[in-house]
Formats: sequence, C-alpha cells, structure tokens
Amino acid sequence: MSIIYDKICIIGIGLIGASIALAARRAGLAGHISGCEADPGRVDEIERLGLVDSVTTDTVAAVKDADLVVMAVPVGVMGGLAATIIPQMKPGAVLTDTGSTKRSVIRDVDPHVTDAIHWLPSHPLAGTEHSGPAAGFAELFDGRYWLVLPRDVPEEEVVRFEGFVTGLGSVSERMDADYHDKVLALTSHLPHLIAYTIVGTAVDLEGQLKNDVIRFSASGFRDFTRIAASDPVMWRDVFVNNDEAVLEMLQRFSEDLSYLQRAIRWGEKDKLETLFSRTREIRRSIIDAGQS
Amino acid sequence: MSIIYDKICIIGIGLIGASIALAARRAGLAGHISGCEADPGRVDEIERLGLVDSVTTDTVAAVKDADLVVMAVPVGVMGGLAATIIPQMKPGAVLTDTGSTKRSVIRDVDPHVTDAIHWLPSHPLAGTEHSGPAAGFAELFDGRYWLVLPRDVPEEEVVRFEGFVTGLGSVSERMDADYHDKVLALTSHLPHLIAYTIVGTAVDLEGQLKNDVIRFSASGFRDFTRIAASDPVMWRDVFVNNDEAVLEMLQRFSEDLSYLQRAIRWGEKDKLETLFSRTREIRRSIIDAGQS
Repeated sequence: MSIIYDKICIIGIGLIGASIALAARRAGLAGHISGCEADPGRVDEIERLGLVDSVTTDTVAAVKDADLVVMAVPVGVMGGLAATIIPQMKPGAVLTDTGSTKRSVIRDVDPHVTDAIHWLPSHPLAGTEHSGPAAGFAELFDGRYWLVLPRDVPEEEVVRFEGFVTGLGSVSERMDADYHDKVLALTSHLPHLIAYTIVGTAVDLEGQLKNDVIRFSASGFRDFTRIAASDPVMWRDVFVNNDEAVLEMLQRFSEDLSYLQRAIRWGEKDKLETLFSRTREIRRSIIDAGQS
Repeated sequence: MSIIYDKICIIGIGLIGASIALAARRAGLAGHISGCEADPGRVDEIERLGLVDSVTTDTVAAVKDADLVVMAVPVGVMGGLAATIIPQMKPGAVLTDTGSTKRSVIRDVDPHVTDAIHWLPSHPLAGTEHSGPAAGFAELFDGRYWLVLPRDVPEEEVVRFEGFVTGLGSVSERMDADYHDKVLALTSHLPHLIAYTIVGTAVDLEGQLKNDVIRFSASGFRDFTRIAASDPVMWRDVFVNNDEAVLEMLQRFSEDLSYLQRAIRWGEKDKLETLFSRTREIRRSIIDAGQS
C-alpha cells in the first residue's frame, strides 16, 4: 500500500484508537501517526507499547499539520473536542470520528465545523469487551464494516477516506445517520443493554446463589458477562445519545418478551417451538453473510 | 483409564449423547457402548459416523444388559421413556439423564422407578448451539461441571458414576434439584430466552431494515443469534418444565430492565455508569473461576 495521508492524528488511544494506529502502520497508510491522549497516566503506556510515532496530551499540538484527524473518544465528549480542535486544524484536512451513535455526534459537532475542513463522520463495526491502549491490535478491522456518512464533503475526499479504511482492513459502506442509529440500536446497543441488565440481576442475588451463578456460569450467561464487561463510560454515552432508537427497539423487545413469558406461564409449547425455529434461520443468514 | 461400566447404553444420540459416547471411548470407560435413537432416519448417520458400538431404534433391546443407561433426550419426554425402559433394565443398573431441568425430570421419572435399579439424575453444564449426532465431539465436557443429584442411591454407586463423568473430562459436583433449577434459570435458561426474544424481534422487522440488521450484525447481536440457534424442541421443553424458576428470574430481570430504561429516558448517566462498572467485576470473577 502507499501513503494516503501524510500525517494522521488519532485522539483517544483506547481499543479503537490504538487499533487504527497499528492497522495504519501495518498497511503503510500514513507518513506519521500522532496520538493524543487526555489521560496523562496513559501516555507512558502508549509510548512503551510503541503504538504511535508521537504522543501528547495537548490536542492543539497534536492536530497541527494533520491531514486526517480521528476522534476516537466516547460520544458524549465529541462536541467539546471538536470545538477545541477544529480552529487549529490544517485547512483542507479531514475530521472523522468513530462513535457508535451518529445522530448525536453530528448534532454536537456540526455547530463547530468551518468551511476550512472536511467533516466526515464514520463508525467502524468492530470492537471487543477489552478497553485501553493495550487492548488494540492491527487485525481488529479485518473484514468488518466501516460505515461512512458523507454529507457536504467533496466526493474525492470521501473516496480517499474510504481508501484509508479499506486499507485498515475493513469493508467501507455509506449510510445516513437516522438509519445508522436504528440499525445499531438493535444489532449492538440493545444487546449490550440486555447483557448489562441480566448480569446486573445476578450481581444483586443473595450471597451463596450469586457465588454459584458465577461458579456454574453456563454458556448463555458466560457470553453475556463478556458483553457486559465492555467499557462503562463509552456505553453510558451510547445509551443516552441514542436514546430514541434504543427505547423504540426496547419497547418492541419488551412486548415480544411478554409474549414468550405468557407462553411459558400457560405451557404453550407450540408458540415457543415456532419462534425458536424461526430464530435459528437468522443465524444461518448471518453465517451466509460472512459476519459470523 | 480402566472400564467403569461393562456396558453403557445412551438413549438419544444428539449433541450430548454423541459426545458422551465419544468421550467414553476416548477414556476407555466402557466395554461396549450401545446407542438408541428414536428417529430411524438418523440411524444410518450414527453408524456412518461410528459414534457407538451398536445402534438401534428399539429402546428395550438397547437397555438390556446395560450397567449404565443415559437418557439424553428432551426433558419433556423423560417420563415416558423411563416408564418404557425401567422394567427392562438389568437389576442393579444405574439410570441417569442429562436434562437441563431437574425438578420436572425427577417428578416425571420417580413414579416409574423400582427398587431393582439406581436412579441418579444428572446434568452436564456443556453444550453448543449445534445439535444432532454430527455435532458431538469427545472434548465437549473437558473442564465443565457435571452436576449429580443423588437421593436414595448407595454412596458407592454415586462415587462410581462420579468416576465415570470425571473420566469423560468433566468436574463432578453434587447439588439438589430446587437449587439446580434456580441457578440454571439465571445462568442458562433466561439468557437463552432473551436471546431468542431479541433475535425474534429482528425477524419481525420490515424488509430492508431486517436485511441490514443481519448484514451489519455487530458483536452483541451476533452472539445472541448463536445462542438463539440452539435446538428448538430441547429449549421449548426446558422453559415449560422450569417455568417457576424462569418466571421468577424473568420478573427480576424485567424490573432491572425497567430501571435502566427509565435511566436512559431521563439521561441519568451516573446510574448507568455505576451499574456497568459493577457488571464488569462479575466477568473478572468468572475468568478467575476458570469458566470463561
């Protein structure tokens, strides 16, 4: 691969930020990768891990001269960050983000955007339950979708950015914000909310029962605990910033759960078997789509 | 290892039955392993896969002379099966089952038990979302708990059976039925019910949105679809046979979900972050318990 941006700057070196740096280096997509991390305690770790070419806690210094600036921070702080960095950015540079909600990030960042830069929101559909710089790895985006939301950006800049995320290993796809937030509410946000809830239900059990739930944790629950180990601040921000779509999907889910609850109470075996057979087919579709 | 039972008979050669056969052979725990499968269409497949030493559709012929009979069928049919086979079993033989609910199986099987045999309910905490004979593998039970529920059985028979399940690779643990059903309701049954529900919610979405939910299926939802691909008949039986404990845990879960729903609606970030931080600790406990 050849260099796509001479200098990129990644703000927030957690799981996603660190993985972007490592994947960009793997493919030689940038001449220089600078990192910016608000938590001074993490700077030493980032240097020791050799994740970026240079690292600082100073956002203004970090974005200077960058051709691409990536905001990889919780969605709740995107707006304030954009207000700080946009006036310092190089004219013609691209600003993107990796947030899991798109309507709220666009709402918060848009007021600070100037004609001097290109604001191109995006969202890589990749992650693990681990967080922090040490959790990053170059293969995180391989074969995963990276959703790009172009609005008032020249087509050649969109294509260039798509070349960059493809170079990171991902599959680029364009989408608009409303639709993004609806799809993600069901595929990602609601499952996380439910996993957090059921693990929370276990946390509140009485002593011995709680211990044995952990000890004899069978396959279903074990998967949920993995999901419920995800970064608390990131997810707190996701739920309050995609509240509308999450609450709508949650309403549908609750109705469906009540239906099953009633079927269990009345021993309606046929209803249960019919639904369980239908859900099995969805799994096959996902395997066929190559995303299993 | 040496032979623990001269002849064992496994009734129901699905994921669990086939895995018991393969694990018993791996460790040399039985002189002869006979299999019994009610579905004649599967007999050829079982023979071709070489899972057992002999296979038949005739339960009476299968259990004859067996020192250990394992009922590895959906919990809803355990009672009828026990009524058929117990009168044909060899005096002094052990009868066990692998059902995921224990109160209902004991309730259904107990009336058919005679003094001539030893009835020792059990439940291996192991499984995958795959089902059928070809899904079985010898390593399924390695390091997993196998719960044993002794009641009126001589201690030496319990110890012998524990030696057998340990030989299959599992960790043996004694438990009573009430407690079993409560622990499993939360660790296994409720997670499956919720996974079935949320995948069902997706199935009911309108055309394009449904397709994109499958296509962009992110990590949370993908895990749920795997769980929701589990055997429909087995799980239908689990829910109607552990209805009391499942409905109780479901009630707790629904209350906790409403609490989070309200926190999202009112933007109560602190409440969300506090809960999400507590659930993270549970994951660590499970990793420490070696069951991750």
